Amino acid sequence: METLTLTLIPRIPSLSHLLLSRPLRRRFPSRLCLSSSSAMRAQSTVAGFGDPSFASDYKAQPIKGEGIEEALIGFITGKRKATEVAHSVWRSIVQKGDTVVDATCGNGYDTLALLKMVADESGQGCVYGMDIQDSAIESTSSMLENSVNFHERKLVKLFSICHSKMEDIVPKDVPIRLVAFNLGYLPGGDKTIITESRTTEMALHAASKILRSHGLISIMVYVGHPGGREEFETVQSFASILPAETWVTCKFEMINRPAAPVLVLLYKK
Amino acid sequence: METLTLTLIPRIPSLSHLLLSRPLRRRFPSRLCLSSSSAMRAQSTVAGFGDPSFASDYKAQPIKGEGIEEALIGFITGKRKATEVAHSVWRSIVQKGDTVVDATCGNGYDTLALLKMVADESGQGCVYGMDIQDSAIESTSSMLENSVNFHERKLVKLFSICHSKMEDIVPKDVPIRLVAFNLGYLPGGDKTIITESRTTEMALHAASKILRSHGLISIMVYVGHPGGREEFETVQSFASILPAETWVTCKFEMINRPAAPVLVLLYKK
Repeated sequence: METLTLTLIPRIPSLSHLLLSRPLRRRFPSRLCLSSSSAMRAQSTVAGFGDPSFASDYKAQPIKGEGIEEALIGFITGKRKATEVAHSVWRSIVQKGDTVVDATCGNGYDTLALLKMVADESGQGCVYGMDIQDSAIESTSSMLENSVNFHERKLVKLFSICHSKMEDIVPKDVPIRLVAFNLGYLPGGDKTIITESRTTEMALHAASKILRSHGLISIMVYVGHPGGREEFETVQSFASILPAETWVTCKFEMINRPAAPVLVLLYKK
Repeated sequence: METLTLTLIPRIPSLSHLLLSRPLRRRFPSRLCLSSSSAMRAQSTVAGFGDPSFASDYKAQPIKGEGIEEALIGFITGKRKATEVAHSVWRSIVQKGDTVVDATCGNGYDTLALLKMVADESGQGCVYGMDIQDSAIESTSSMLENSVNFHERKLVKLFSICHSKMEDIVPKDVPIRLVAFNLGYLPGGDKTIITESRTTEMALHAASKILRSHGLISIMVYVGHPGGREEFETVQSFASILPAETWVTCKFEMINRPAAPVLVLLYKK
């Protein structure tokens, strides 16, 4: 496996969080951060998984590049996941040459999908990917090495950093078309170790600031595990107070599968 | 305006409710039924409108035949209504020659849209339309006369009847591909006169029984008026108890516009 390589860019305002995140992370053996007061400083980007029943397939195989009709009708008829709806929506919003953010790299499937959406021949597209887990960044980097060519790989900047710190790595004068979140906990891991709503809320605030007009924040929220419903309420509360004059916020939610992930979309007019 | 004409079909099991509905309706001057114990027998199909802020445009012009991508991205970006998403989903589910039900004819736009989806050259498609309001049925009939040819018009069966009685007019051996509800109250009317959740729940039960496998119940729920939220909770409760083995139930909902209508979809596997 490739050694983790961080692509540094000249206009990064501060790398202090990036540098600090390493010793903090080593205090926690899990890929996720403890939801306790002692872990507050190292919270809590996750690896892009949710509860096992919905995440297993997603982990096993990347999402195909379907159109919105196939994804949405598939979602309505129980044949496609909300993640597939999300990807199809991204493809309609994101344009070649855009700069986007994957706030929770995880296994790298979202990062790869986003790269394919922005990469153009002139080399202007860019994906900022982050995850507080070393293993997630390594996995993402490895996947990219195996999936894309050298020129495309150069368009991805990966950072071991909590998503709440995204403003520290994304240059201030670059308009961001999309920020993607995939919340949840790692299937097979310790279920008492959960993500922290507070950090997710901070990350949403940061995302709303860096997002350009006609840009989208996409949040896949997993609610089937302890703490997941609380995190969803945090996301929903944040979405509810965004002013309707400048934001359109909505959610796509299963009703008779209460543990199914909810897709929340925040569009900046 | 054309005089109301009911198209009777030979296999109707009972017309007692249809016949009874006329004197009962005359007791209420509004197009909607009273939400009181005295009005329990005559509740409460509505005319397909919701709160004024969302219904005015819809009332003013019929919905264009857009694709799902245009409708969904428009919804996410604040440029299209949930009703437009509903119509685009219907077009993907409904096939030529199908039999469908418009449970709340209202101004007839849904009825017309459904007719265009099912009408085929062999004359097999069929739309059962109903509304407890005489004026709604008259309006729908008039619109159809002005919009479609004689052969298409014959495919629509209109009834002045509460949607909770749909089993009395839809033949038992005909598989129904889609049942469409458009709940709410009449803009400009008496806001103390609201639809009754109890009758809507009865109608949903009836719809779930007559629906074929691979069929869809589509419910546009308006929540901005007094009683609207309660009706939404009734719809959601009904959707939540449908077994996940045989039903997929979901909702598309605005978050930062609490008065915006919610699209609830119930798909029978």
